[in-house]
Amino acid sequence: MFKLAFIGGSKYSIAGYPHFIASQMDKRFEVVAGAFSTDPIINEETAKQWNVKNYYNSYHELLEDSELEYDAIIILTPTPTHGNLILELLERNIPIICEKPLVGTIEEIEKIEKVFDEKKHFLVITNNYSGYPMLRELQEKIRKNELGEILHIRLKMPQESFLRAPKSVKYPQKWRLKDDFIPMISQDLGSHLHHLSYFLMQIEPIKAFATYDKFSQYNVVDNVNITLEYENNLRGSMWLSKTAIGNRNGLHVEVYGKKASALWHQENPEKLEFSYATGQKIIIDRGSDIEMLPNPLFNRMTPGHPAGFIESFANLYNNIANALEKFKQNEKYTSQYIYSFEHAKNSVKLLHAASISNKEQQWIDIDNI
Amino acid sequence: MFKLAFIGGSKYSIAGYPHFIASQMDKRFEVVAGAFSTDPIINEETAKQWNVKNYYNSYHELLEDSELEYDAIIILTPTPTHGNLILELLERNIPIICEKPLVGTIEEIEKIEKVFDEKKHFLVITNNYSGYPMLRELQEKIRKNELGEILHIRLKMPQESFLRAPKSVKYPQKWRLKDDFIPMISQDLGSHLHHLSYFLMQIEPIKAFATYDKFSQYNVVDNVNITLEYENNLRGSMWLSKTAIGNRNGLHVEVYGKKASALWHQENPEKLEFSYATGQKIIIDRGSDIEMLPNPLFNRMTPGHPAGFIESFANLYNNIANALEKFKQNEKYTSQYIYSFEHAKNSVKLLHAASISNKEQQWIDIDNI
Amino acid sequence: MFKLAFIGGSKYSIAGYPHFIASQMDKRFEVVAGAFSTDPIINEETAKQWNVKNYYNSYHELLEDSELEYDAIIILTPTPTHGNLILELLERNIPIICEKPLVGTIEEIEKIEKVFDEKKHFLVITNNYSGYPMLRELQEKIRKNELGEILHIRLKMPQESFLRAPKSVKYPQKWRLKDDFIPMISQDLGSHLHHLSYFLMQIEPIKAFATYDKFSQYNVVDNVNITLEYENNLRGSMWLSKTAIGNRNGLHVEVYGKKASALWHQENPEKLEFSYATGQKIIIDRGSDIEMLPNPLFNRMTPGHPAGFIESFANLYNNIANALEKFKQNEKYTSQYIYSFEHAKNSVKLLHAASISNKEQQWIDIDNI
Amino acid sequence: MFKLAFIGGSKYSIAGYPHFIASQMDKRFEVVAGAFSTDPIINEETAKQWNVKNYYNSYHELLEDSELEYDAIIILTPTPTHGNLILELLERNIPIICEKPLVGTIEEIEKIEKVFDEKKHFLVITNNYSGYPMLRELQEKIRKNELGEILHIRLKMPQESFLRAPKSVKYPQKWRLKDDFIPMISQDLGSHLHHLSYFLMQIEPIKAFATYDKFSQYNVVDNVNITLEYENNLRGSMWLSKTAIGNRNGLHVEVYGKKASALWHQENPEKLEFSYATGQKIIIDRGSDIEMLPNPLFNRMTPGHPAGFIESFANLYNNIANALEKFKQNEKYTSQYIYSFEHAKNSVKLLHAASISNKEQQWIDIDNI
Repeated sequence: MFKLAFIGGSKYSIAGYPHFIASQMDKRFEVVAGAFSTDPIINEETAKQWNVKNYYNSYHELLEDSELEYDAIIILTPTPTHGNLILELLERNIPIICEKPLVGTIEEIEKIEKVFDEKKHFLVITNNYSGYPMLRELQEKIRKNELGEILHIRLKMPQESFLRAPKSVKYPQKWRLKDDFIPMISQDLGSHLHHLSYFLMQIEPIKAFATYDKFSQYNVVDNVNITLEYENNLRGSMWLSKTAIGNRNGLHVEVYGKKASALWHQENPEKLEFSYATGQKIIIDRGSDIEMLPNPLFNRMTPGHPAGFIESFANLYNNIANALEKFKQNEKYTSQYIYSFEHAKNSVKLLHAASISNKEQQWIDIDNI
Repeated sequence: MFKLAFIGGSKYSIAGYPHFIASQMDKRFEVVAGAFSTDPIINEETAKQWNVKNYYNSYHELLEDSELEYDAIIILTPTPTHGNLILELLERNIPIICEKPLVGTIEEIEKIEKVFDEKKHFLVITNNYSGYPMLRELQEKIRKNELGEILHIRLKMPQESFLRAPKSVKYPQKWRLKDDFIPMISQDLGSHLHHLSYFLMQIEPIKAFATYDKFSQYNVVDNVNITLEYENNLRGSMWLSKTAIGNRNGLHVEVYGKKASALWHQENPEKLEFSYATGQKIIIDRGSDIEMLPNPLFNRMTPGHPAGFIESFANLYNNIANALEKFKQNEKYTSQYIYSFEHAKNSVKLLHAASISNKEQQWIDIDNI
Repeated sequence: MFKLAFIGGSKYSIAGYPHFIASQMDKRFEVVAGAFSTDPIINEETAKQWNVKNYYNSYHELLEDSELEYDAIIILTPTPTHGNLILELLERNIPIICEKPLVGTIEEIEKIEKVFDEKKHFLVITNNYSGYPMLRELQEKIRKNELGEILHIRLKMPQESFLRAPKSVKYPQKWRLKDDFIPMISQDLGSHLHHLSYFLMQIEPIKAFATYDKFSQYNVVDNVNITLEYENNLRGSMWLSKTAIGNRNGLHVEVYGKKASALWHQENPEKLEFSYATGQKIIIDRGSDIEMLPNPLFNRMTPGHPAGFIESFANLYNNIANALEKFKQNEKYTSQYIYSFEHAKNSVKLLHAASISNKEQQWIDIDNI
Repeated sequence: MFKLAFIGGSKYSIAGYPHFIASQMDKRFEVVAGAFSTDPIINEETAKQWNVKNYYNSYHELLEDSELEYDAIIILTPTPTHGNLILELLERNIPIICEKPLVGTIEEIEKIEKVFDEKKHFLVITNNYSGYPMLRELQEKIRKNELGEILHIRLKMPQESFLRAPKSVKYPQKWRLKDDFIPMISQDLGSHLHHLSYFLMQIEPIKAFATYDKFSQYNVVDNVNITLEYENNLRGSMWLSKTAIGNRNGLHVEVYGKKASALWHQENPEKLEFSYATGQKIIIDRGSDIEMLPNPLFNRMTPGHPAGFIESFANLYNNIANALEKFKQNEKYTSQYIYSFEHAKNSVKLLHAASISNKEQQWIDIDNI
């Protein structure tokens, strides 16, 4: 088991508990330390409830504790704090597992790029949704050309939280209510869609056209439409929203090929639907005879017993453990499931281009960013 | 009962039989004559099978038959032929029921505008989808502000027919494989989405940004994305496609308001789904206690026995019969359900603006068209 | 076109208008006369609204009108009146199209059996649900052994009308609130399920066990569970209810075979779902490459435009027209789609056995009835 | 944190890993020891993979290890072994958490009844499905009479595993292929349905009528239909199957009341559907304003991120931890969520009555068992 330390991610944060459970679910990692919160009471409360013995009121204290042993640090602080923290950890050669998005600005990307060396540094981003077995099945089906040439892809992630927040969390968090040049909604949701676009097709878009809207009371962008061009005339579209009542987390993936199309909806994650030129719709799940089946992690419980978000996250943590093992043996650790700096850089470039497009009301070449 | 004559719409056309059944379903109209096809064999075959006594091998013959009595002519010929035909019928003051779209070019709109006078001419367009009771319920709910201020609306109509044609019809028809400045897909599908946008919200968009794609073997536009701005920052989006495998006729309506949102999907037309700020999804149908219930046409058979496309079309034909009665009494015949030239003109302007936008790759003011 | 006369089925009845539309939809029949109601005002109102020239205030008057020409009579009166009416029409050798159930008692079956001769008499029952193309597809798939040996079949038809009546109709009708030995709910809904069981599998059950419940205010049976045994250990179950809130007309068919299973739900009638031993669910519709496709009636409008209950009913009326043609040529007119007395007799025997079973609380051999 | 020891539940069993994850997810329990398998290699492999330090090749060794400290034992061995094991643990006053069903025969129930004393012994059964938040919401809604008087309840749990086993597990296990008087399918699946019936309504059935079928190659009962009577004429029905292709684990709950009905389907566990007398269907989930919301366990991750089977199981383990705390303070530990011997006894009585009914082909009074 690898030992983990948390920076951020207290019991009151949204991402903290899912990371805490998912990382430890399969006994690949143990959380041994945390600077969960800069509020000492919350910090202690979290450590006690989660039975974590070593806790620190600032991440500096954690880093300075020479007694403390750990194999990697998980960054779960607000996105605007990621940049400096990552630079500091890279300098110390500490393996980093960073909640998405890596950073929210092109400037931070450039700073990290100057020091980051994938051969020297372990840096992986937790783009959690690609941990779902059915999305991995889809990746494999696309790779094997089962859909034929991909013609267009439509990704969306509408949510309702700026019109009706979930009662179970303090939402929206304050730090999300101040927009950078790349608005927070794009940092938050757009990074997911960029990830899935690449994860599934293994190519990047080359041009972007975007429109931003502000519908809520918060005076930040809360509705984003991006039209994309990829190479070979592949067309893409992304829709992000925090003002779409009725959508808790409406992440949908639609991939249209010449021979077949595929649909996946995160709120029904165990099903994957294909439509073929025969006019048949074929729905598969973990109980079907599929590519992904041999992996026992995809069957912690037998098919028909829904596996949810946290289990898919745990799948990713298993991949991260494997990656960390490779890194420790000086092997390449990125893979079809594990993404590092380069991927985050492409994400920021796309979202930065979108912001320019919205401002200038024209198409923007992403490569020029 | 009013007497109808068909121009176009033979038994081999797509729209002919639905119009034939829908117009006569409730005994408001009787089809007494037809120039169904310029192919004399098909024409006779159609008339015989449909038991229509008066048939003519050209519409001129029909118009010239001074013995023939009818109250209106239904135009079901290919769209490019509509313009001249309409001009000819308007000149003769013959009431016209015209299959959508009225015409496909801005030039034709201008020609008709010069002669058309709503007080003198009866001209209605069969935008059939708004005949579904649940879309009418939605229109009423929006009018009563049940969704609150509308923030954004998303309309889509993806189809698969250019990658896999339905076996039951000769498709695509030849005349659809030659694009005007407004491509055929926009004339065909875009006119539906424009209609529903206006039908539901009773406002028109003011700016359009569009991208066109050609994915199929036919070298015509087959995939269209339009982003729209309406007044008051209302955002719209429309997606049309004939290259989206798995979608027979994927007409979806999504309306997002400040207080609630509404979804309707044409392939499940008896259901209307609302999502409220309480976090409840409420699904209603003809069997619920709703606004539209008193209309017996919406219950030809009791709830739970799905009414389909042709019945919704028959609802519209009932409205047309009512409109024709009003016209004959010199009353205003357009209404929340019945649309005439002005509506068609706005549709063509929007779609024309989209074509300019696609060409110039920038936002286009629709009012300048 | 054949000429039809209605007995019963006024504009205020539930079944009248669907029969009126469905029978005439494809111009195979024309309704030329009716004794729609014994209430002269309703009778006239119906005839006027439906544009039927010949109307009579009693069926005797209709039968006695020697001027009136018609090819068949449609019986749409309350079930308890069917028996005598049928006997009278059989005696006169008038072709009969009878709304299901043919009759509601074993005594009436016996009386009809004494005089009915399929070679001499035309008598068909409108078991409407088997007019849906997807159920016909399922019939064909079962016949071709695509499901393997059938192990069990589950049919249900729960409704809510005794707890909340549809507002659009006067419901429940008075004559439905008095139970015979076979309760009205079984006559009404059970006859549908018997029909579908036979329609799909072409075999009859041999034993029945039933329980009846009375939940509503009406003091009639309103909830029925029947467990069935067929030959070869095939197990069946039927559930009928008028006290299942949330179910407008919850007709579901589930057929489980050794190789595959099939599901069909009347409220989504255009889809048919199969599950195979590969773990795939395959959904087909009129737009898929299926057995039923060549029939143009199943594509009055292209796939993706839902066809509803009345269209499926019209499919049946087309089969009836074909059957009537055969009868007039002295050919056998029953078929896989057209059912006559023998089928109704088996239905009554099953439902009669169920009533004995409920009374005696034991299994009853149906053949002994 | 309480310390747990496993008896049974190796990494190759179906239930072992879900229990292992669920019990520890929220740091209420720690698994410190196990006699996971009588096969020493599997036992060691499991302990190593799961990082459990104390492991024993037989449960006797575990019980005899005087150094080992634990707060409760989890029984995960095959059902036929439960009886003696429970008797042995009760004698030693060891707190027991037992996988359902407690035992499979009426004889074992009688033996345990002689020694079990709820005040002295801690014995809880992991009836896992009632850990789903939406079923708890439904329990609460029924308690508050939101459905009105309950008229009938339909529970089903069809599976396909005897016709197509999930590839991911060795299935069916050998011990499941030998039937007791209560067949294995009833012990396995019937115990779930009995639990949910009581969990939701807090009443027991009084009469049972059952039919058993054997469809598969295994010569054991694999399809069971039970009709039930509860007090006040409440009607129940249960369907269990292992030969229903297409159903991974088709657990459905349908509760019909005078005022409303409720549906829940385990494969879509985050949604709960109500139908009201207004004709509205209302769908709620964790993101709605509901009764269960204040519990943070029901929101380990925000609404819209599906929580699955293992999380629902972890909810139950939290309740068990609370119950164990109460037991240690000599308080009553059973509750609306926590069930002990009495519940298991009622389950066995119901299923035993069903077996008599199937044999004698008549209704059986459950209280006489």
